[in-house]
Amino acid sequence: MTTLIDSRAREAIRSLEGYRPGKPIEEVQRELGLRDVIKLASNENALGPSPKALAALRRATAQLHRYPDATCAALKAKLARRFKLDPSWFIVGNGSDELLVLALRAFVDPGDEVLVAEPTFLIYALQAKAAGARVVTVKSERLRYDLPRMRAAATPQTKLVFIANPDNPTGTYVTTKELEAFLEGLPAQTVVVVDEAYYEFVQAADYPQTVRYLEDHPLLITRSFSKAYGLAGLRVGYGLARPSLIRAMDAVREPFNVNSLAQAAACAALDDTSFLAKTRRMTEDGRRYLSRELGRLGLDVVPSVTNFLLVKMGPKAADVAQRLLRRGVIVREMRAWKLDGFIRVTIGTMPENRRFVQALKEVTGSDPVSQSRGS
Amino acid sequence: MTTLIDSRAREAIRSLEGYRPGKPIEEVQRELGLRDVIKLASNENALGPSPKALAALRRATAQLHRYPDATCAALKAKLARRFKLDPSWFIVGNGSDELLVLALRAFVDPGDEVLVAEPTFLIYALQAKAAGARVVTVKSERLRYDLPRMRAAATPQTKLVFIANPDNPTGTYVTTKELEAFLEGLPAQTVVVVDEAYYEFVQAADYPQTVRYLEDHPLLITRSFSKAYGLAGLRVGYGLARPSLIRAMDAVREPFNVNSLAQAAACAALDDTSFLAKTRRMTEDGRRYLSRELGRLGLDVVPSVTNFLLVKMGPKAADVAQRLLRRGVIVREMRAWKLDGFIRVTIGTMPENRRFVQALKEVTGSDPVSQSRGS
Repeated sequence: MTTLIDSRAREAIRSLEGYRPGKPIEEVQRELGLRDVIKLASNENALGPSPKALAALRRATAQLHRYPDATCAALKAKLARRFKLDPSWFIVGNGSDELLVLALRAFVDPGDEVLVAEPTFLIYALQAKAAGARVVTVKSERLRYDLPRMRAAATPQTKLVFIANPDNPTGTYVTTKELEAFLEGLPAQTVVVVDEAYYEFVQAADYPQTVRYLEDHPLLITRSFSKAYGLAGLRVGYGLARPSLIRAMDAVREPFNVNSLAQAAACAALDDTSFLAKTRRMTEDGRRYLSRELGRLGLDVVPSVTNFLLVKMGPKAADVAQRLLRRGVIVREMRAWKLDGFIRVTIGTMPENRRFVQALKEVTGSDPVSQSRGS
Repeated sequence: MTTLIDSRAREAIRSLEGYRPGKPIEEVQRELGLRDVIKLASNENALGPSPKALAALRRATAQLHRYPDATCAALKAKLARRFKLDPSWFIVGNGSDELLVLALRAFVDPGDEVLVAEPTFLIYALQAKAAGARVVTVKSERLRYDLPRMRAAATPQTKLVFIANPDNPTGTYVTTKELEAFLEGLPAQTVVVVDEAYYEFVQAADYPQTVRYLEDHPLLITRSFSKAYGLAGLRVGYGLARPSLIRAMDAVREPFNVNSLAQAAACAALDDTSFLAKTRRMTEDGRRYLSRELGRLGLDVVPSVTNFLLVKMGPKAADVAQRLLRRGVIVREMRAWKLDGFIRVTIGTMPENRRFVQALKEVTGSDPVSQSRGS
């Protein structure tokens, strides 16, 4: 039996369901007695961490007894040069997850409305509820954000809108035109958070360069070092917005929210262009390979601009995920997103992708060899 | 001119003043053109990070592209064995700072009362205000927490009390007897946070073993790896409380709040008993030396059980701190705590302590050599 939540807890959080992360490799090894396990469940970078970031991190360990720089000055200066903006337009977080929470804590009072899509990244609704907000949900249309309907749902009570672009877990994106139409004439008090955690993977010509809208709109863009730069374990992401919005988030931020190794590694990762190029190549190649192979198995794959694919498996999706797990392949089953019938698979290295396809064939009975063996 | 905070910010945070951390060494080097700078301003461990922790951290870097364990299972298991409690009694934070914020987010609604001492750790009142709480302040008596008056100030509206034990910035502590009397018959809905960031330094026989009260009282104890274990840059601390309280804090926690290197390093640090012993020895020796030398200069030193000393300098305290800075010695001037006339100095290595005393003599004109030189 689980322990109940204490009666001293705020009313708003008493019925919250926690977020369930992807299973770690060690857990699967331990629970199922497997040695060779691959994880394609959390959209991590299969190439490992950026080597330049690792080198910078190792140099920084000697000073770990010192508090981190509370202002993340070096990282902000680097970002400022890159974006040709003043450092006051930036905030750094313990992963971009923290920035989402800081936005809620800065702009949303209990009872305010927060607008989210469904399905999308689960943390938006979860943390908005924790803030005591009234969460207004707009269903996506064919697994793409329905921005016209979200725009229509925005009221003078809407304090915050979350837009994942590209979206997780669908892998789809909203276009420049769609985003511009959404921003046009929004209620004045509405802050728009555009979560661009998968920004670096997108090649589409009509994907918006959101930075252009920062000046004219109360917009927060968040980016991450967890995906393309391979630093998920370190926890570091950044936000861009006009300084008056950044200042509001800084007011609720804990001073030492970003550890020193993350700051050093993120600075170096931004310069690791060859690692980023390699990551993009691997992702493109893997996406093409997986889309083709899954298509051959008669499976629908949602068109993705990210490093993962949402795949329609039919009613046995959860069972397939479980059976893949027993073969040492961790993917995500999607019931927590109300996407029963789907699995989400991260694009891995080519050997990992092949192993996933082979295991999937065995599990779904599409493999001629395993069928003739009668497995 | 500073940019104003955005009008979309919550009312509660519009007038918040930020926390000003101690100046980093690099900043002083850059601003004052000094090479040889020592920092005795942030109560860091002058011995550096725990070597066992560093070794564990280096082993963990290869997997940095993976998300951290969201449950901190290994660290909680280790703590559970040490405290002879179930892992469900623990929560791990991005520094114990984060745990203070999680407690506020779990238990305090806008308008609720939060009880804090003055002076004490500034983050309590700052983050309580950010949560929209009504902060009730009880002045300390001769720089010691006045628990009887705090007990009298607790009302049925008091949702949270912060007790730093030992206290920062005074270095004093509340005794077993005082704490027991405080807990006795507290209003039922009041959660008590006892912040024991400096726990490992305390030797006093009447310092409470707060763990004993966890079962019978709605109490959260927080501890840190930033001080005695020398891991301030990594950000990791832990909390202990009955599982129903932990569960409430887990409901508002971001899943990946503690980076993987911090988890690995903290596990190893708990086993680094020789480093901890060395740290305690250095702190005891340094405290004795500094108390004696400062006494000889006719300065009042607040009796401390921690790795820092609060020193009464008189009306020129801020000026003294500034002049020490120009000599490459960073200490804390205390106006932000309304302790005008005081400085706070961290106990360093013996060479650092000597350098501080020498610089102080020069600055205050108590040094016969510098006086004869007319400096």
